[in-house]
Amino acid sequence: MIDYIRDGQEIYRQSFAIIRAEARLDAIPADLEALAVRVIHACGMPEVIDDLAYSPGAGQAGRDALEAGAPILCDSQMLASGITRARLPADNPVICTLQDPAVPDLARRIGNTRTAAALELWRPRLAGALVAISNAPTALFHLLEMLDAGAPRPALILGFPVGFVGAVESKQALAEDSRGVPFVTLRGRRGGSAMAAAAVNALGRGDA
Amino acid sequence: MIDYIRDGQEIYRQSFAIIRAEARLDAIPADLEALAVRVIHACGMPEVIDDLAYSPGAGQAGRDALEAGAPILCDSQMLASGITRARLPADNPVICTLQDPAVPDLARRIGNTRTAAALELWRPRLAGALVAISNAPTALFHLLEMLDAGAPRPALILGFPVGFVGAVESKQALAEDSRGVPFVTLRGRRGGSAMAAAAVNALGRGDA
Repeated sequence: MIDYIRDGQEIYRQSFAIIRAEARLDAIPADLEALAVRVIHACGMPEVIDDLAYSPGAGQAGRDALEAGAPILCDSQMLASGITRARLPADNPVICTLQDPAVPDLARRIGNTRTAAALELWRPRLAGALVAISNAPTALFHLLEMLDAGAPRPALILGFPVGFVGAVESKQALAEDSRGVPFVTLRGRRGGSAMAAAAVNALGRGDA
Repeated sequence: MIDYIRDGQEIYRQSFAIIRAEARLDAIPADLEALAVRVIHACGMPEVIDDLAYSPGAGQAGRDALEAGAPILCDSQMLASGITRARLPADNPVICTLQDPAVPDLARRIGNTRTAAALELWRPRLAGALVAISNAPTALFHLLEMLDAGAPRPALILGFPVGFVGAVESKQALAEDSRGVPFVTLRGRRGGSAMAAAAVNALGRGDA
């Protein structure tokens, strides 16, 4: 037998203790501390939260929305899979429209990626929703365009697209002008479905 | 309208060009170059592949296994969700046993996490399989213990657990002695389902 810790609760306890010892959490508002810890836990990089940007009260806005039963609108199936249903306070619907058969035609019609086009199908549920973008910068850009054109306002935008083309710029655009919507984002190239799922999970039950 | 690139193919092209310009790919064997590029693409960090460790021929072993119809055994549902089915050359089954109703009892019986216990249900499909560990260090440790106890050998182990307790150590244990099984792993704390899914996807169709 190899010598390692086999108790899941003890692994969590030690992990969170290491994160709290290494990360600069004192700069993070109280209502985003659990989110910061879980995002670090998902990627193994304590310094990643130095790139966190947010509007005041964003964490509380997300918690309130979930308590009120808000749906969680996800840009990728991987993100939707990573959301721990048992942590959701109101059996909140977790919705990803990317596989909807209408999406390829929609993408051609609006001249954008399928991930961006899939957001068009969010419109009936967008008011008061918790929106999480984990993957495509085009989705975050298109969300801002939809808001500029008068789309209903979500309760919170979690902006975590990742990568080399548009990720930095789309998150910068969100941080500079979130169109009046509360937001949390991660400046720079880093992001992705694991961090976005961790951010959603931190707004659910079980974390202070 | 905001000014950004809306063409998915062009975004991929520019992303991969930036990765090839920034990453130290010349140190990577030819059969793992696509994997290295896709892992970087999934996390936004070109230098992450400096932590890549692997056995000679691991990439080819993974491709051969997929061509031969090998199942892909995943430790997390998020990883399974991230595998692009259209890239798989032989309609390969993608299997995650974590939600099996037998797992909680099994975890109590073997005194390990549920993620580790779920691997016990892989045994009938383990011979020649492509194994991907994206999340729990305990799963990678337990896989090594199963191999030590005579479990059937997979064709390839992709070891990408993430985090602060056991991730470094489990990947070190794999890299030091993979029990004769071809492997690819990422030294250090970084890893996770997005990188593991990218590694699997790189071994499928469509990449050189």
